[in-house]
Parts: sequence; structure tokens; C-alpha cells
Amino acid sequence: MPTISDRGNLMPASPIRKLVPFAEAAKKRGVKVYHLNIGQPDIPTPDCALEAIRNYDLKVIEYSHSAGNESYRKKLAGYYRNIGIDVDHNDIIITTGGSEAISFALKCCLNPGDEVIIPEPFYTNYNGFALDAGVKVIPITSDINTGFALPPISEFEQSITPRTKAIMVCNPNNPTGYLYSKDELLQLRDLVLKHDLYLFADEVYREFCYGGEEHTSVMQLEGLEQHAVLMDSVSKRYSECGVRIGALISKNKAVISAALKFAQARLSPPSIGQVIGEASLNTPPEYFQEVYDEYISRRDFIIDALNKIPGVFAPMPKGAFYAVISLPVEDADHFCQWLLEDFNYNMQTVMLAPASGFYATEGLGKNEARIAYVLKLDDLRNAVKCLEEALKVYPRMLKTQHAETIHN
Amino acid sequence: MPTISDRGNLMPASPIRKLVPFAEAAKKRGVKVYHLNIGQPDIPTPDCALEAIRNYDLKVIEYSHSAGNESYRKKLAGYYRNIGIDVDHNDIIITTGGSEAISFALKCCLNPGDEVIIPEPFYTNYNGFALDAGVKVIPITSDINTGFALPPISEFEQSITPRTKAIMVCNPNNPTGYLYSKDELLQLRDLVLKHDLYLFADEVYREFCYGGEEHTSVMQLEGLEQHAVLMDSVSKRYSECGVRIGALISKNKAVISAALKFAQARLSPPSIGQVIGEASLNTPPEYFQEVYDEYISRRDFIIDALNKIPGVFAPMPKGAFYAVISLPVEDADHFCQWLLEDFNYNMQTVMLAPASGFYATEGLGKNEARIAYVLKLDDLRNAVKCLEEALKVYPRMLKTQHAETIHN
Repeated sequence: MPTISDRGNLMPASPIRKLVPFAEAAKKRGVKVYHLNIGQPDIPTPDCALEAIRNYDLKVIEYSHSAGNESYRKKLAGYYRNIGIDVDHNDIIITTGGSEAISFALKCCLNPGDEVIIPEPFYTNYNGFALDAGVKVIPITSDINTGFALPPISEFEQSITPRTKAIMVCNPNNPTGYLYSKDELLQLRDLVLKHDLYLFADEVYREFCYGGEEHTSVMQLEGLEQHAVLMDSVSKRYSECGVRIGALISKNKAVISAALKFAQARLSPPSIGQVIGEASLNTPPEYFQEVYDEYISRRDFIIDALNKIPGVFAPMPKGAFYAVISLPVEDADHFCQWLLEDFNYNMQTVMLAPASGFYATEGLGKNEARIAYVLKLDDLRNAVKCLEEALKVYPRMLKTQHAETIHN
Repeated sequence: MPTISDRGNLMPASPIRKLVPFAEAAKKRGVKVYHLNIGQPDIPTPDCALEAIRNYDLKVIEYSHSAGNESYRKKLAGYYRNIGIDVDHNDIIITTGGSEAISFALKCCLNPGDEVIIPEPFYTNYNGFALDAGVKVIPITSDINTGFALPPISEFEQSITPRTKAIMVCNPNNPTGYLYSKDELLQLRDLVLKHDLYLFADEVYREFCYGGEEHTSVMQLEGLEQHAVLMDSVSKRYSECGVRIGALISKNKAVISAALKFAQARLSPPSIGQVIGEASLNTPPEYFQEVYDEYISRRDFIIDALNKIPGVFAPMPKGAFYAVISLPVEDADHFCQWLLEDFNYNMQTVMLAPASGFYATEGLGKNEARIAYVLKLDDLRNAVKCLEEALKVYPRMLKTQHAETIHN
């Protein structure tokens, strides 16, 4: 029997999705599972997007241009110019989800063995894309006690080697909910210019910034035109994760040309998804206001409720719809699986994503988990109740003095 | 300015798509371009598929399971069992087009530096996926004079090295239209079993077999359960290339487990595409009969018409909707570009895919091109007329005796 490749063996199972079989088994036993493990919002997709599907009237569902439909790219460039990002449609390649944009950026800019520096915890699938590209992730650890702010820039600089080709940030951050300030981004700008690196930014949560703080894009940083690469997606903005439409954006023509060749190899991004993405650009401002209000109330509720559970600490997120929280347990991986396999509270339980998979440094995040507050308030209330009850009976708790040390 | 990666530089531009800018320029000058360059059929998508779009009534376009919706995979397994391929839904991962299935197969089974043997000319994007995976393509040249039949199995065996991990075929073949016989496939089976290799088969044109010959799948070959990996797609079967839905299928559980991790990294294949793919399984037999009749008449017309043009040779394809033909020109790459840039016949021209990009061996296919007979008879007639007229005035023709030697 022929063997599997090394990368086939090494590719990490998604910590967000690896517990899915246990959730499915729980559901088959009749247990209601509250999914706080995955950024799948329950927010309705905008009407204009759904209408575009129902009105689809072409007779043949054809391939699109490999870079995406020109009409969509032109309209999308208008969206970016509206928010102060000066691009035209030739600076944009439509990708199959933000995932493909990340993958294209890594492959076009880094050779196998090259290094990308990423503050951790980070979106776990960066590991998969890096492994796929043969690229080494160099983590810089951020701290739950600062709300996961950008670590001191000196730590980034100390980690730069001759193989370093890029720094990557997710802003607002998945999984931490941290929103990088303009000042933090300017420090990163100066560093990448000094060392001639790329600055990759995953800004798919751009519209989800709370507390009046403004989002700064890497594409707005002066002098960074040839260094900044933006990875974007419609998934969260319009609650249409399933259309698999994203974008790779850069003023660096060599990056776009190289990415276009990768895009040609896979022929075309989803055609109907592009029709939906284009229609979604007509979403009225009231939609975003409603969504914003909804997330603010969810965030305020769940962070407050979590911090009331003995031994739990949840920093207040400033963006996106995630938080990394610490739990008074020895091993969050075990705890999250136990929640699905061995626990229920009135035939309900909660699914979290263990945070260990969001760290590249072995052993970190052992007592942390990511939550996504993507459910209605009532569901969040039930989910938090399940968590609270679970922690009362879970057999492998941290000793109390440990828990206190860790959560202060 | 930071540099592009080696693979970003080395990734080949698609020979099918690299002439697109010239076609666009021609269209802007008012020239009608007949697209024989790309396998984008003009056949209508089945009504049941289009209806599924119009009836889409979910409020949120959500991610699907990373392996694809279970309902779709179960129904798809039924489709395979119906055609004598014994699989269940756990043997199937739904992919983003056949492209992703090819990419997953290469990455899960081969290490960088490993070799895959492929008869050439082959579907040009295999080059891109191999480069992306760091895998080396070892071509075995097939011959236009045999209609591109499988080269002698001894040539495959002689090319096996300690780095060889797989043999890959496309059946029916893109770009040649050749349909591998059961006997040819049995030879391949014996060889991969002898050397413990994978046998990858891209069978996306399975339904397009002409002249009464039956299609044999690698999944039907006895004893090959752990070695056979099937790459499939709905694109051509239902004329819905733009939905980007394919599948990776194998009875080898280790291959499926590894591929699932790659699938998890990109979260989900297109959700609406899966709804369409699932609905398409209800396509009535009459649809396929009509499509079959249409392609037969197109094939018979165009092959006959091409062979009547002095110096042109077109072997009769037995499957798919392509043919690789030889042309009495010095350099088909130049000719195909010239057709778009410098030629028109009554403000019409034809776009072909130069065949050089379908060969891995440098210098082969210089006077060949791939045609896709995906247009209506009237359009094909006009396209062939353009080609005929072009060859009368094209300045860089092969000398006649060469042309005759080559085309006999």
C-alpha cells in the first residue's frame, strides 16, 4: 500500500473542526449543542444578496475570468476607495474565500523554508496554509492579560532571520478580538520597511470594530505600497461564509501577476458566489448598524457573564466576534471534548474551540479556549449556563490557587 | 521591494488563458472571437440545477461540512454505485472544482521532489498543481498518429525511479479526446501494483464517450482499492463549470483522512454549488442523450472539416470534447496569438489553445493546438472557416514537405 506524504501526515486537523464528530454524536443522542466553536454567524445574509440568487437567470453556469468578473472587481475597488483604500480593479484578484487569498500570498511571496512572523494566538488555519506552502511560522506570543495587544516590536525584530520574508497580522484579530491601533501598525510598517519584508493583513473583520475605535488598514499606511498585501473575504461582512468569495489585494504588481498564475491553474472562483458578492455591495448601511448593535450586545453580555464564572477570565474584545478566554481546567482540549462526550445540562451542552491549536508554541493555551459569539442572546445565555454547570462537575479542574494566579 | 518566490516566478501562465488579453483586445476592436480554446460548453445547465438556485430559501449562506454536505455525498455515492463504482459517502470529499481534488491528491500522496508519471500531452494545469505541490511531472509522450493512445507500458516502467509515487491519467482525455481501453487500464493496474504506486484518474469527462465504447474507471479495477484515487467534477457533466464543485474519491482511508485535513484548512467547499450539484443528480437521462447527440454531431463535423484543410491533421477523438490537431505552421503559439492580434475574416476570428503548454517535454507540440468543440454547429462552421482562411494568409507556415511528413 503506497504511503501518505509527510505533509499529509503533518497537516494539522482543524482545532475548530476536529471535535465535530463528537458534536455529531452528541446531537444523535438528542443533546442540543451550542456552537461557540466556529465563526459561523447566525446573522441573516442581506436581502439584496439572497435576491441575486433567486433572480439568477443565466442558462449556463460558466467559468468566470480567473481573476474574477471585471464588473465585480470594479465595484469592489469602489468599496475600498470608499473606506480610504486607494486601489483599482487590477490590484484585485477574486479568490475562493479568504482562505485562498492567504494561500496565494504565502506561495507567491515565500519559498519553502522561508519564515513568516505572526503574533500568537493566531487563526489556526494559518498553520495549515503555511504547512501547505512549506513556510515556517515564527510566533510572537501575545498575552491574555493585555487583551492580546501587539507584543513589543523589539520581539518581532529579534525574531527576524535571513529567511524572514513577511509579517502577518489579522486585524481585528481572530481568535482574540484585539483591534490593532494605528500606532501599532505604524511600528510594523517601519519594521517591514527596514528589513524589506511583506506585511500581510487579514482584515476580514474590518466592519466589526467596537467602542468607537477606527480600523486602520495596512493598505492605508504610507510608503508601504510594495510591501502591503491585503487578504479579504465577504464571508463575515455579509454573513455569507458559504459563498467562498474572498480577495487578494496589493499595489505590488509582481505579487498580483504571480497570484494570477495560481488563479489560472484553478480556472475560476465560484461564479454564483461572485454574483452574490457583487450584489452584496448594495447592502444598505442600516444592515451594518443592526449587525453592529447585535454584536455589541452579544459581546457585552457574554464577556460579563463569563467573567462571573469562578476561575474564568475573558478580556474585552474590541473587534471581530471572538474572544480567547482562560478556563480553570488542566487541559482545555480534554475539557472541550468532555463537554460533548460526557456532559449535558438539561440535554444541552456547548462547543468551544480549544486554544492550543491557535498557538504555534508547544504547551501554550493549554487552559484557554476560543469562543465565537455568533449566536442570539438567548442561545448565548444557555451556552454560558452550560459552561458554568460543566465547570462545577468537570473532574480535571486546575487547583484553585493556580487558577487564581493565572486569571489575574 | 521584497521579491517574489521561486514558485511565483516558475508557475506557468495557463496556455488556455494566457491569450485572453489578446482576445479581449480583439473583441474591443469589434472582432467576433470563436472560443475553441477553453472547455466552456455552451450546453445549457440542466433545469433541475437552475431551479435549485431560484428556489434557494435559506436565510444564511453558511459554511458546509469541510468534506461537503452529507446529503450530497450520500446521493453522489448512489450515482457512483449506479455506474458500477462501489463507494459510500465516507470515501468522498467534496472539493472546490476538480482542480482542488487534483491538488489534494498530489499533496496528500507525494512529497516535494517525488515524481508523478503522466502521458503527454496532458491537461496543462497538472503542471501548475504539480509545481504548487513541489512534485516533478515525468511525461511519457503519446503520439498524434495513434490518436494519442496509451504509450507502451514498458516506457512507463522504464521511467519509474525511487521517487516515483504515482501515475496519473485523464480518461477520457483532455486534451486529446482519447478514451483509454480496459486493457490499457489493466496494464497500468499491474504496473502500479508491482511498484506500489498510486493510480490517479481524472474522469471528469466520463459521460462523454463516443462510438459505443464503454468507460472503465480506475475504481472498477480489481485489487486496486488502496491505490486508486479518483478526481471528479460536475463542471462538464452538467455544464456548470462555474459552480466549482468536484470530488476526491478513494477507498484508501489514509488518503481521505489526509485530504480531509487539507479540506478543513479551507473550511468548506461552496455551499450553493453543493446545492446545485446535489440537484443536478436528478438530471433526466434525456438530457444526457441530447448532449451526447449534440457532441457527436459537433465532433463528426469539426474533425471532418479540419482534415479537409490542407496541412491540418485531426485524429478522431473517442471521448471528452477536445482534439489535439496539427497545423502547418512553424509555431502554434505565434499562430494562435496572431489569429487574435493580426487576423480577422469578415470581422471574425478563432481562438485555439497552443498545444506546447500541454507537453512537459520542451519543444514538443510546437505545431499542434487543442480545440474544444463546445460551440454550436453554426459557430463551429464559422470557426473552421476562419482557421482555413487564416492558414491561407499566415506568414510563418511550415514548408509543404514538412507539413506532409508530419501529417501522415
